[in-house]
Amino acid sequence: IAKEVAKLLEMKAQLGENEGKQKFVLKTPKGTRDFGPKEMAIRERAFKAIISCFKRHGAEVIDTPVFELKETLTGKYGEDSKLIYDLKDQGGELLSLRYDLTVPFARYLAMNKVTNIKRYHIAKVYRRDNPAMTRGRYREFYQCDFDIAGQFDPMIPDAECLKIVHEILSDLQLGDFVIKVNDRRILDGMFAVCGVPDSKFRTICSSVDKLDKMPWEEVRSEMVGEKGLSPEAADRIGDYVQLHGGLDLIERLLQDPKLSQNKLAKEGLGDMKLLFEYLTLFGITGKISFDLSLARGLDYYTGVIFEAVLLQQEKEHVEEPVSVGSVAGGGRYDGLVGMFDPKGRKVPCVGVSIGIERIFSILEQRLEASEEKIRTTETQVLVASAQKKLLEERLKLISELWDAGIKAEMLYKKNPKLLNQLQYCEDTGIPLVAIVGEQELKDGVVKLRIVATREEVNVRRESLVEEIRIRTSQC
Amino acid sequence: IAKEVAKLLEMKAQLGENEGKQKFVLKTPKGTRDFGPKEMAIRERAFKAIISCFKRHGAEVIDTPVFELKETLTGKYGEDSKLIYDLKDQGGELLSLRYDLTVPFARYLAMNKVTNIKRYHIAKVYRRDNPAMTRGRYREFYQCDFDIAGQFDPMIPDAECLKIVHEILSDLQLGDFVIKVNDRRILDGMFAVCGVPDSKFRTICSSVDKLDKMPWEEVRSEMVGEKGLSPEAADRIGDYVQLHGGLDLIERLLQDPKLSQNKLAKEGLGDMKLLFEYLTLFGITGKISFDLSLARGLDYYTGVIFEAVLLQQEKEHVEEPVSVGSVAGGGRYDGLVGMFDPKGRKVPCVGVSIGIERIFSILEQRLEASEEKIRTTETQVLVASAQKKLLEERLKLISELWDAGIKAEMLYKKNPKLLNQLQYCEDTGIPLVAIVGEQELKDGVVKLRIVATREEVNVRRESLVEEIRIRTSQC
Repeated sequence: IAKEVAKLLEMKAQLGENEGKQKFVLKTPKGTRDFGPKEMAIRERAFKAIISCFKRHGAEVIDTPVFELKETLTGKYGEDSKLIYDLKDQGGELLSLRYDLTVPFARYLAMNKVTNIKRYHIAKVYRRDNPAMTRGRYREFYQCDFDIAGQFDPMIPDAECLKIVHEILSDLQLGDFVIKVNDRRILDGMFAVCGVPDSKFRTICSSVDKLDKMPWEEVRSEMVGEKGLSPEAADRIGDYVQLHGGLDLIERLLQDPKLSQNKLAKEGLGDMKLLFEYLTLFGITGKISFDLSLARGLDYYTGVIFEAVLLQQEKEHVEEPVSVGSVAGGGRYDGLVGMFDPKGRKVPCVGVSIGIERIFSILEQRLEASEEKIRTTETQVLVASAQKKLLEERLKLISELWDAGIKAEMLYKKNPKLLNQLQYCEDTGIPLVAIVGEQELKDGVVKLRIVATREEVNVRRESLVEEIRIRTSQC
Repeated sequence: IAKEVAKLLEMKAQLGENEGKQKFVLKTPKGTRDFGPKEMAIRERAFKAIISCFKRHGAEVIDTPVFELKETLTGKYGEDSKLIYDLKDQGGELLSLRYDLTVPFARYLAMNKVTNIKRYHIAKVYRRDNPAMTRGRYREFYQCDFDIAGQFDPMIPDAECLKIVHEILSDLQLGDFVIKVNDRRILDGMFAVCGVPDSKFRTICSSVDKLDKMPWEEVRSEMVGEKGLSPEAADRIGDYVQLHGGLDLIERLLQDPKLSQNKLAKEGLGDMKLLFEYLTLFGITGKISFDLSLARGLDYYTGVIFEAVLLQQEKEHVEEPVSVGSVAGGGRYDGLVGMFDPKGRKVPCVGVSIGIERIFSILEQRLEASEEKIRTTETQVLVASAQKKLLEERLKLISELWDAGIKAEMLYKKNPKLLNQLQYCEDTGIPLVAIVGEQELKDGVVKLRIVATREEVNVRRESLVEEIRIRTSQC
């Protein structure tokens, strides 16, 4: 017995030790980050540009829950489904965190029988992907989606989506970019004429999608080795996917002896031609490239697809600009709403998603390099005191200012030093200081100090609000 | 063998049938809702009022991930911990959805060694509670939090939090309200002098917290029956918790023979007196009630606590206004950051959380009753055509307008009828129509129609942007 007890005690000691080792870790979950005030200021700048573009195009806004019924997401994302976050079964419905904003949008349309809407939705989505945080790839990240749902004449909403991407990327001044465009029907037609069996269309499409990260040789060996495609079919695909260009290429492919015989490809190419005509009217074809290697990973696309990539700043000795990654993508998905509708009624949709995290990364890096000082508050005036025992007077004055809509702060000290109060303004960029002192109180005035110039003026108390408004109207 | 096959076939048929029965349910998860364009317009109005108040008080903004490490939330919420949503263990860290914004804020402060910040945070939080959606209680809901962290002179930040609640509720015009105030030190002192054992403080506090939903008799029987408190102690508590008032009550309790002997209670009452002095300077004591029955459910409070409740509109034959529920709450939590800091360094904090969902419910109901028409877009002008075959001209014009920053829409039809285009403006509240027609194109003008007055003027194409800006500057 003694032996057994000793053994148990030893085990207990080990356990205790292990428990001690399981120290509390102070961190955010893998692949996520906090946004501090400075990051938020940058983020809100970017959102402002994006939202104002969406509103310029007449979009309404909606919001949906962060999680959906698990079955709502099932069968929508193809090979990426394994990246969905599930909630623990704690009784009741099985739930998953949303993977994008498109599937919840389609669920929303079907559930509310909406057949016609132009909306934007800015919210976080979740993917259990391998994070690459320095490159702006996270497990929790914002998407900024704009979609047009409804039965319309071909390519008009599609062209508007591309116009929106062009406007936003230009407005944010992220440097040179190109928007690659393709069409799922052209891809499928191409697969057919290259001899890919119908059942392999989606998986071969996934392989093509990797061409922006892998050289053709690797993609080809995945097609042939892992996915069992014939080497001849792969080589035929290889010939097509290196093509990119504009209206000229579309015309050439419309004459292609094989592609022109395929109904799907012909439809896709016809619409692509129409799209380029509209984009010419918008004056943006300079940044658009019809690119047969663009595939997009998600299952639900049915027509036009597109993706915007930033081009590396030109450096000496670099011959061609190199792509540094996708910042927007989207396409047409005419079948997704029908998957949710009990009677399978379809609502054609096309939309674009702005990948804001990469844009944040770039804006952050740029701001750091520029040493621009970014304000994180909008405070117009600090209510300060020159002597001790004036807390009550400061409270009275700041309350008056707040009630008049002035953005005001004070230090939460009974008797702060004037120097500390002025220093606070320097640190935080507050442009004005309203100083109460005994003499000023007697005279019915407040001393207003302009931080930048160190100028001080006495302002009658009843004119203070107006004076602050005038002096900060440029802020 | 035939028999076996028949059996298998039968089983298969049954399986097929069951699969058929497991019909897909088109809904959002229990306790959650979508926000359509109309609801979003209301929501954004409320957010605007709240954010502008937070900014008026000089707050910065931060954001944290929607989930935290499970252990980050452990031991912070007392009896409510069972309501936390856990994520499924899919390998890697164990995660939970945030239950409030306060614990993530404390984690953020400790992790980034921030000892001094005034910030707001508006985001969704998650509770597996019994939803009561018509009363605005959801499982996913927004919190709008404002907190002040740092070592300051007593009650100055606390008073500002109450001022903020007062400003927001007044600004949103939700009707009459009262802000109940108490202090955990007064509660704990009261429990001590009533004879509650130390170990039962928190659980008895939870019972007191139910006084806004249950009569005293039920709370008393929970204390005595479930929680094993002596009936005498319960009755003594009963005497205290019916007290509410202002400075007069504070003075009276400072003289109370039992409470005044308790160090904690004395400290709490002293600070409460100071708080009321500051609130008097802010001119808001009319809506503040020092209320000994206010307990607040969460474990982490250490000092002042408060809760704002809306009072039912006065009706005839109703003697006293009845509370319809809490719309804001908060308090001081000086120990929470120290729970995360590896060396236990404390950062005193006080904050307020606006319960926006109930406010939405009220605003929605009011809007429905008023029949006010709410616009869900900001579109200034519809680009329309009077004849067929003018799609290209519409695309060219709308592109010019977008590039000039005008909010413009067009119908996505090749040849829409003018009547349909005008009807669209009526339906959506677009104030102007820019009509292109063959004659106008020849003359270099655009016909601008003012929807409200049906007035039409010819505007030279180069002046159109300016004309639209002038005519919609009030929008």
